[in-house]
Amino acid sequence: MSGPDSTMAGYGERARAAARLLASATTAQKAAALEAMAGALDAARSGIMAGNEEDCEQARREGVSGALLERQSLRLGRFDAMTAGLRKVAGLPDPVGVDTGGWRLYNGIRLQRTRVPLGVVAVIYEARPNVTADAAGLCVMSGNAALLRGSSFTLRTNLAIADALRAGMESAGLPRDSVQVIEDVSRRGARDLMTATAWVDLLVPRGGPGLVAAVLEEATVPVVIDGAGNCHVYVDASADAEAAEAIVVNAKVQRPGVCNAAEKLLVHRDLAPTFLPRIVGVLRRHGVEVRGDDPARAFVPDLVPATEADWDQEYLDLVMAVRVVDGIEGALEHIARHGTGHTEAIVTGDHAAARRFVDGVDAAVTAVNASTRFTDGGEFGFGAEIGISTQKLHARGPMGLEALTTERYVLWGDGQVR
Amino acid sequence: MSGPDSTMAGYGERARAAARLLASATTAQKAAALEAMAGALDAARSGIMAGNEEDCEQARREGVSGALLERQSLRLGRFDAMTAGLRKVAGLPDPVGVDTGGWRLYNGIRLQRTRVPLGVVAVIYEARPNVTADAAGLCVMSGNAALLRGSSFTLRTNLAIADALRAGMESAGLPRDSVQVIEDVSRRGARDLMTATAWVDLLVPRGGPGLVAAVLEEATVPVVIDGAGNCHVYVDASADAEAAEAIVVNAKVQRPGVCNAAEKLLVHRDLAPTFLPRIVGVLRRHGVEVRGDDPARAFVPDLVPATEADWDQEYLDLVMAVRVVDGIEGALEHIARHGTGHTEAIVTGDHAAARRFVDGVDAAVTAVNASTRFTDGGEFGFGAEIGISTQKLHARGPMGLEALTTERYVLWGDGQVR
Repeated sequence: MSGPDSTMAGYGERARAAARLLASATTAQKAAALEAMAGALDAARSGIMAGNEEDCEQARREGVSGALLERQSLRLGRFDAMTAGLRKVAGLPDPVGVDTGGWRLYNGIRLQRTRVPLGVVAVIYEARPNVTADAAGLCVMSGNAALLRGSSFTLRTNLAIADALRAGMESAGLPRDSVQVIEDVSRRGARDLMTATAWVDLLVPRGGPGLVAAVLEEATVPVVIDGAGNCHVYVDASADAEAAEAIVVNAKVQRPGVCNAAEKLLVHRDLAPTFLPRIVGVLRRHGVEVRGDDPARAFVPDLVPATEADWDQEYLDLVMAVRVVDGIEGALEHIARHGTGHTEAIVTGDHAAARRFVDGVDAAVTAVNASTRFTDGGEFGFGAEIGISTQKLHARGPMGLEALTTERYVLWGDGQVR
Repeated sequence: MSGPDSTMAGYGERARAAARLLASATTAQKAAALEAMAGALDAARSGIMAGNEEDCEQARREGVSGALLERQSLRLGRFDAMTAGLRKVAGLPDPVGVDTGGWRLYNGIRLQRTRVPLGVVAVIYEARPNVTADAAGLCVMSGNAALLRGSSFTLRTNLAIADALRAGMESAGLPRDSVQVIEDVSRRGARDLMTATAWVDLLVPRGGPGLVAAVLEEATVPVVIDGAGNCHVYVDASADAEAAEAIVVNAKVQRPGVCNAAEKLLVHRDLAPTFLPRIVGVLRRHGVEVRGDDPARAFVPDLVPATEADWDQEYLDLVMAVRVVDGIEGALEHIARHGTGHTEAIVTGDHAAARRFVDGVDAAVTAVNASTRFTDGGEFGFGAEIGISTQKLHARGPMGLEALTTERYVLWGDGQVR
């Protein structure tokens, strides 16, 4: 017997066939499949961890280190997070089949608008093997087949995870090919996926600016962009300094390498004389390099001078640039010019200020008196996320089950014509 | 004084500035603006009609005729339909500011999900000047600025309409630049609009396959495709022959040149001996050329033989191809292979058959015992439509006010950090 067809057409046909069956699977069937996937992962744990060790070892030999190497390891609770995520998603409300509108037309036709799965969802991602399970779980629970193309650095891990997930699907009576990991991790393989209009209903690229640019340039399939952060925290004159400090520190240092980390701090002129020296001291104690504009450096003279390029840069590191602004309008103007529409936060004690900021910001998520770090599918209660959309069409912000559906209309008539 | 900047950047900056003001306009302000736009159109009627006559005369000289020429005329009630459309849309519920979700996170943060305008919406359309008013009305009522690029054949008409609309906006205290007609109708001008990522939040191309292909190829701005029809009517064995006849005839002949006209007729084998001769006779009396596969020609020998190419063709004319199918599964298989996901209809008296068809079809609109012609913003109650989406992301089917909005999250916290 020859192996399965590993061309794009082969993956695509199998995914399409699986998607047709998944689309009519009941909520109970899909939930049982996710439970079975989690169980199969648990059962295959030692093999998956061994493959992951091999992947990490090879990456280390090839020069990968630090945060990048850390991200591809399944140790540190990440394996358990995968199975917990699948079980969490299994318990969420099923968006498929939910009516999102419905009314009677003037002529008696009953119009029904209902959520249905997209069909086949593809994800291109970097060396984070937990995405394999997260994406597969969200896709299956929302009735979609998943085509997953990870990094060459984690191919062993991804395939081992997918083997378990596929066995879980089969044991639950749903098609194994609902989850497929694409083995061709070449650039050409990526391009084949980006242009597979016959088979891919949605492509989500999860990766850095290079991947996003390649997808914008080359993709002909429908895409939702999981784009850059460069999130701001604006500290208003009315802010409680203690709350502001806690939010700024959390937003900056809790996990500096992710897109919902804060990169820029905007401080109201009236609060700057007291708040700036304080927050700079605290950030530095957390190892943050703080850069500042001239007015900020008037209060903290030894700040690294911020250049114009700083305002557009997403550091993804323990670096933060500080600017003094003339109140909310100045903050809104700065954000309008330099923000990416991801997450913008205000810390304020003033209700009118909070309202004005919320009304004036154009972003997927606006946080009032809360850390930017909450822009996350898990935090939102989605169990996991397929990505965080920074575009306006289809979905915005953390994308869970609902973002993996589309709507369709049914007209129930009894012979109406125009 | 020099004229306004007619570069893409000039149009874009003005649209962006207008969109910022429109985003915070109240429902009453926007409704008043649409009423004022309708009033200004009425007041400018004779001038607009004179410009339209000139446009039509020039098009005639350049060889345009028939349905194409008819579409660009504002006579035959089309002028009144524009003002009636604006007044209808003015009375519709405002989608902006509506909460579409909201829950409390585990940590007490109150999550709010709200509809907001997209920003700047661009439409590229052919020689149908009524689109100028329809699109402008929908954009303004949903809080968006409109960038409208019509055909060179209707430039005088479009500019005259836009002059009135802009005067109406101004008289209602909202920015004139909420509605702009782009005067550069060259290919290069179209390309500038398709790649204006700094200014355009959504582009809707309304035109034939050539325009759609150019947009898919060249556009870098977010796009919703208003694509091809090739709609099917499936007549089940259980169908009432009279209702089936009325629906097939209406779907085919009421307006054959539009995307929601039926192009294909699928007939259940058991009904074919009686229904086929009857429907072919009626269609022919309406001037329709009927083509058929071999089984159909067994019942009506003088049908034009249908070729394989017929099944994928959108005739947009008084032509219909007929196929005999083995019940619902045969119809679904044919539609899966040849449909474009626009509108598919079943005529049936059997409830199980209706359910199976609805579940098995993947289309923006599925019609049960109703004509395909109801896939229309006006029929759906949207007042007008910005297009009919045949894609799955963002919006599907007729697009009214809601399709011109996006969602955003606001997190209302009191100091939460992760």
